Amino acid sequence: MSHEFELITQYFQPLCSVESNEVGIGDDGAVLNCPANHQLVVVTDTLIAGRHFPLDTDSYDMAWKSLAVNLSDLAAMGAQPAFYSLALTLSPLENNQAWLKSFSSGLKALSEQAGIRLIGGDTTQGALSITITAQGWVPQGKALLRSKASVDADIYVSGQLGDGGLGLVNVLQKLAPDAIGYSEQAIEKLNRPVPRLSLGQALLEQGLSVSAVDISDGFLADLNHILNASNLAAVVEYDALPLSAAIKDWARYTQNPLFGLNTGDDFELCFIALPEQAKQIQTLSQMLGVAITKVGQTQVWDGQSERLMVLNGLGEKLALDVLGYQHF
Amino acid sequence: MSHEFELITQYFQPLCSVESNEVGIGDDGAVLNCPANHQLVVVTDTLIAGRHFPLDTDSYDMAWKSLAVNLSDLAAMGAQPAFYSLALTLSPLENNQAWLKSFSSGLKALSEQAGIRLIGGDTTQGALSITITAQGWVPQGKALLRSKASVDADIYVSGQLGDGGLGLVNVLQKLAPDAIGYSEQAIEKLNRPVPRLSLGQALLEQGLSVSAVDISDGFLADLNHILNASNLAAVVEYDALPLSAAIKDWARYTQNPLFGLNTGDDFELCFIALPEQAKQIQTLSQMLGVAITKVGQTQVWDGQSERLMVLNGLGEKLALDVLGYQHF
Repeated sequence: MSHEFELITQYFQPLCSVESNEVGIGDDGAVLNCPANHQLVVVTDTLIAGRHFPLDTDSYDMAWKSLAVNLSDLAAMGAQPAFYSLALTLSPLENNQAWLKSFSSGLKALSEQAGIRLIGGDTTQGALSITITAQGWVPQGKALLRSKASVDADIYVSGQLGDGGLGLVNVLQKLAPDAIGYSEQAIEKLNRPVPRLSLGQALLEQGLSVSAVDISDGFLADLNHILNASNLAAVVEYDALPLSAAIKDWARYTQNPLFGLNTGDDFELCFIALPEQAKQIQTLSQMLGVAITKVGQTQVWDGQSERLMVLNGLGEKLALDVLGYQHF
Repeated sequence: MSHEFELITQYFQPLCSVESNEVGIGDDGAVLNCPANHQLVVVTDTLIAGRHFPLDTDSYDMAWKSLAVNLSDLAAMGAQPAFYSLALTLSPLENNQAWLKSFSSGLKALSEQAGIRLIGGDTTQGALSITITAQGWVPQGKALLRSKASVDADIYVSGQLGDGGLGLVNVLQKLAPDAIGYSEQAIEKLNRPVPRLSLGQALLEQGLSVSAVDISDGFLADLNHILNASNLAAVVEYDALPLSAAIKDWARYTQNPLFGLNTGDDFELCFIALPEQAKQIQTLSQMLGVAITKVGQTQVWDGQSERLMVLNGLGEKLALDVLGYQHF
């Protein structure tokens, strides 16, 4: 069992890198340069063992996911990742070489991939929990905001919906390879989601969108955040949604057509774009190698009806109950 | 019991304030302006119920202290506080109107006093814990650093040492008003430490010091951080240390002369200054109404001996065992 300072020196100091006139781990705080004409974007997410991931999750994956959920928020703002702080609460069960080595490897892998640097944090003893505060930069006034969506615009989502949620079903129910809903891809998505940083930044830089949200609580709930913030309504075409065969099988098997629309842990982006950008968005999709699917349109909200309608292939409205994951 | 979004809207949104071109709570992240020619200072501290404060601590005081320990780190860098994120993990025991109202009042009181704004966070369910990441600004290249102390310089501390530690003894042992070591002042210091922000900023702005640390793990341990980072030794005069009558009584009673020197929770500043600044430092002390006491000198380190000597009135070395609070 390591003492705090040893633990930081051995496992976390190596993840820290700063420029010559900056300060990283080892003082009361980190000191960091700010690029001119940019605004700072700050995001924070806590993951609690047994709540945000199953207790037997590999510590590599816990670390990856804790950073990924924060990076996904930065992606939704169109921000370029810069640095992050780690507040790690460990019980004696986790404070051992194997756990910590694997945890720090997971952090290292994703932080290198995303170009984000660890610059400080705190380690405490208690029930296992991981809080990361990540920061990034956007050009002054250019952040993608939930409140900036316009009417009669297209609604897009990246990747596929529902894979994280199906991954959780796979893990919790220990589905066998021949079971309905079995999906290795979904398990991979649950444990090691890849935040859509390049997409978010490209949307901002190319001026293709000014409004996005990351899909973490479920597509319908997160789209609803945009609609509320921008005071709009929306129609979504169910048949247009990017749902894998495994998701569709599971939705039929559980008689829950909304599975994949109200499950958490997608970490895809939902964004709004003007119809005249459609072609450039498809070009961007090819360039990034990321599926981008148009799934609906924004509309004027009449102030009374539901903001969000999902229509099936016959044009019938699906009943929407719980929109997404309730945190508590 | 409140759901996450209600809880944020009711208790935390009111603490958020942003400028017209900034974004606070309610998007994937906050978007914040950066003053020109400044560096960003980032600090993070987690407080765990039952470990960093007694379980029956008032939630007002928990909030105050959680923010104060972070502000104390900013103070030690000479930073001007700017904004903070709150990651709050609540069990069902705390998720009620009374607890949350009192908690948010404590945050409000200190954040207004310190001029720092809440700009985001996360709320989760689990064992009670509070992680704050606070940020501030320093003029480019001017942060007070542990590594910048020079040889043959004076060592100063603000306020009194050991009050937080004695406050904890008072609370845990439920000392009666006539008991040895009883001190209301110490209990107040434990629960509502006042971070030395004005002092840290004045030291930086007036060029009186370039090296400081906040005393959170105990005076000796924290001074040792400066000595290690600056590769120096130091002599401290025990009789010069600012210890209250109650601390001295308790040290005698427990036959532990180091009580107050190796107890945590002081949240005072220890800083290093050149001898020719002594007069200006006393002027600053009067101006701020904060006691500032010279307690020793830095020396060349020979690379072998102990870095830190504490001498009693007869010039004899005190035995130093555990330097400060071990986190685990």
